[in-house]
Amino acid sequence: MSWVTGVDSGHPYGVHNLPYGAVSEGGGDPRLVVRVGDLGLDLAAACERLLPDLAPLVAGPVLNPLLAAPAPTWRRLRAALVEWLTDESVRPVVEPLLTPLAEARTHLPFAVGDYVDFYASEHHASAVGRIFRPDSPPLPENWKHLPIGYHGRSGTVVVSGTPVARPSGQRRLSGGAIEVGPSRRLDIEAEVGFVLGAGTRLGEPVALADAAEHVFGVCLVNDWSARDLQAWEYVPLGPFLGKSFATSVSPWVVPLDAFDGARTAPPPRDVALASYLDDAAQPPWGLDIALEVELNGTVVSRPPFPAMYWTAAQMLAHMTVNGASIRPGDLFASGTVSGPEPDQAGSLLELSRGGRSPIELAGGVTRSFLEDGDRVVIRGRVPAAPGRPELALGEVAGVVVAALQ
Amino acid sequence: MSWVTGVDSGHPYGVHNLPYGAVSEGGGDPRLVVRVGDLGLDLAAACERLLPDLAPLVAGPVLNPLLAAPAPTWRRLRAALVEWLTDESVRPVVEPLLTPLAEARTHLPFAVGDYVDFYASEHHASAVGRIFRPDSPPLPENWKHLPIGYHGRSGTVVVSGTPVARPSGQRRLSGGAIEVGPSRRLDIEAEVGFVLGAGTRLGEPVALADAAEHVFGVCLVNDWSARDLQAWEYVPLGPFLGKSFATSVSPWVVPLDAFDGARTAPPPRDVALASYLDDAAQPPWGLDIALEVELNGTVVSRPPFPAMYWTAAQMLAHMTVNGASIRPGDLFASGTVSGPEPDQAGSLLELSRGGRSPIELAGGVTRSFLEDGDRVVIRGRVPAAPGRPELALGEVAGVVVAALQ
Repeated sequence: MSWVTGVDSGHPYGVHNLPYGAVSEGGGDPRLVVRVGDLGLDLAAACERLLPDLAPLVAGPVLNPLLAAPAPTWRRLRAALVEWLTDESVRPVVEPLLTPLAEARTHLPFAVGDYVDFYASEHHASAVGRIFRPDSPPLPENWKHLPIGYHGRSGTVVVSGTPVARPSGQRRLSGGAIEVGPSRRLDIEAEVGFVLGAGTRLGEPVALADAAEHVFGVCLVNDWSARDLQAWEYVPLGPFLGKSFATSVSPWVVPLDAFDGARTAPPPRDVALASYLDDAAQPPWGLDIALEVELNGTVVSRPPFPAMYWTAAQMLAHMTVNGASIRPGDLFASGTVSGPEPDQAGSLLELSRGGRSPIELAGGVTRSFLEDGDRVVIRGRVPAAPGRPELALGEVAGVVVAALQ
Repeated sequence: MSWVTGVDSGHPYGVHNLPYGAVSEGGGDPRLVVRVGDLGLDLAAACERLLPDLAPLVAGPVLNPLLAAPAPTWRRLRAALVEWLTDESVRPVVEPLLTPLAEARTHLPFAVGDYVDFYASEHHASAVGRIFRPDSPPLPENWKHLPIGYHGRSGTVVVSGTPVARPSGQRRLSGGAIEVGPSRRLDIEAEVGFVLGAGTRLGEPVALADAAEHVFGVCLVNDWSARDLQAWEYVPLGPFLGKSFATSVSPWVVPLDAFDGARTAPPPRDVALASYLDDAAQPPWGLDIALEVELNGTVVSRPPFPAMYWTAAQMLAHMTVNGASIRPGDLFASGTVSGPEPDQAGSLLELSRGGRSPIELAGGVTRSFLEDGDRVVIRGRVPAAPGRPELALGEVAGVVVAALQ
């Protein structure tokens, strides 16, 4: 148990968590911290004093130098952090380096290399298929053979709290006319993201068994989506402007090792998997993360991450099976997390059944898609279980602002 | 005319060109150079002596600090370079900074931000549509309303000369079975790329009229493509592993201003354009670039860039109309350049009619798709015309090597 006041063994930000982030105070430069309770430990200062050989990896405003180090280095730092925050003898050195996060501003703690978005929820993919392609089978025929993914825009990945301007673009009206203007079907996608470290060289696939040596940590993602722009543009080369205007991520990257007690078996597979995706003999890579989507103060959905068909390890193995290299700071996201129940969908497209059945918010307000001023908060946690304290992933929040004229 | 020996006013790398690159010699660190004839001018050393306020922008191994500067700074540097290489009085300072490129190794001269690939040739899009979607109209219905594009993998953009390992992945056999292994339909796409500078903030579209303030320069691109992987994976989210294993670019970034005398009007538009894409009142953005595709020493195609339906300015305006920001070092490519004639196609998929009609190379050898050991060279130039010397874009070359086991 930590000596930090208020951080008992059941605290969701206890020493079993210790996520990494970047903060600044009073307009100062961002610096890396590790979160414990509601405090941030200055990483650079702590390492300078207690683990000087790692200090250069955490001296800057982003995690990338640490991400570039091999996974055993990440583990060594994490073990040291646990020790520093639990061992009373180190407390005099460490305690002065803790500062309250309440007044700090958070920043994106990693420079994003490539951003890839997957489509790994069977419930989501089926529901979207029924809405976008009503005359075809709900799941594309490749869906259960491989985790479908595509590259998103890394330059517009923003940290939680960044206002999101309503995107403009082309849409086709039901009569066939083309119109340009602010999106009328602005949506969210509640997702879980994975931050990569320990890059590879071109031509070197990452095997399922090696995924944990490359996945540094986990964050929450809101992959904002303009459904009208997307529907018109996406054939044949996939989503582009319907997604590229903003992707928000939570400020805290929870180390993968923090999920050791939260692994779950993925759902049974209906189709035999190619050997590079066959995880039957691997430790389970499902993660027991419960999401919660809040719109203007009303919780509108509780998407269950264990329901995802494809795991992060499979996504990484697939993404690299062609020899594509990965870089420290690469981000890949799960795709919308939707469960089997109607109130477990991770997008308004599904919750409002393609806009036909508006959802009710507190005060009798209804929404099919987002309006200007709407505030969306996606939270994530691993619920407490016997022998396992709750693990918080924090939240990714954003307010929609009007399109620029 | 330049005082550099051998660089007369008709030299394709004369002072009307002056492309930027990065080179190293003897295992040393890469440094930025400007090419004149077959020589490289050390940019950092020249600026330190003659334009010291710009020296910090070119002191590193990549152009990104210069790209981040506003376009008038690029123009100031270019004007200075022309002066230095033509004014005999500066020759004693500059001449010692010129070194032969013959023995130098070239490097990627910019750190790639986001990489976007378009699909701007009507001839290519129609031909691919007929091959991939024989039961649908050859052009998707959105094609003449907007320049279709998608994000590619920036981390696997490599400089010309980098060997390209045959990618592996899933394909569906004609009987429906799924097979995993090295691609059997490895292809090229001959494209023209645009390197961006002078980034924007989130929410700020780039208008057509402002495109020249953000397009720093032009290069050649080979967007290697595994057609069998692509055909199986691309519905509904677009190409992924079929493209992400490697994208090769030429080592020389030719400044946009070098194309001032090479602007051409784009083809007539059949469909009324949305105002943000309507370039009728703009200076023409077509570029009179002639491409040449060579496979194992045989020229197999001569794709004409002026035949492209969409211009680079339209691509940029479209890419940002939703408020997506751009960053210095972002790269976007035109998509395969194919002309109306059979020997003007920029991909083997088209040249071999989907693999059904192998093309003949020298010595009676035939190819439908690439075999291990094959060497592809794509060259580009603006041909000489009255009052206009030839402008060389150099080449993007690559050899296919066997897939890793």
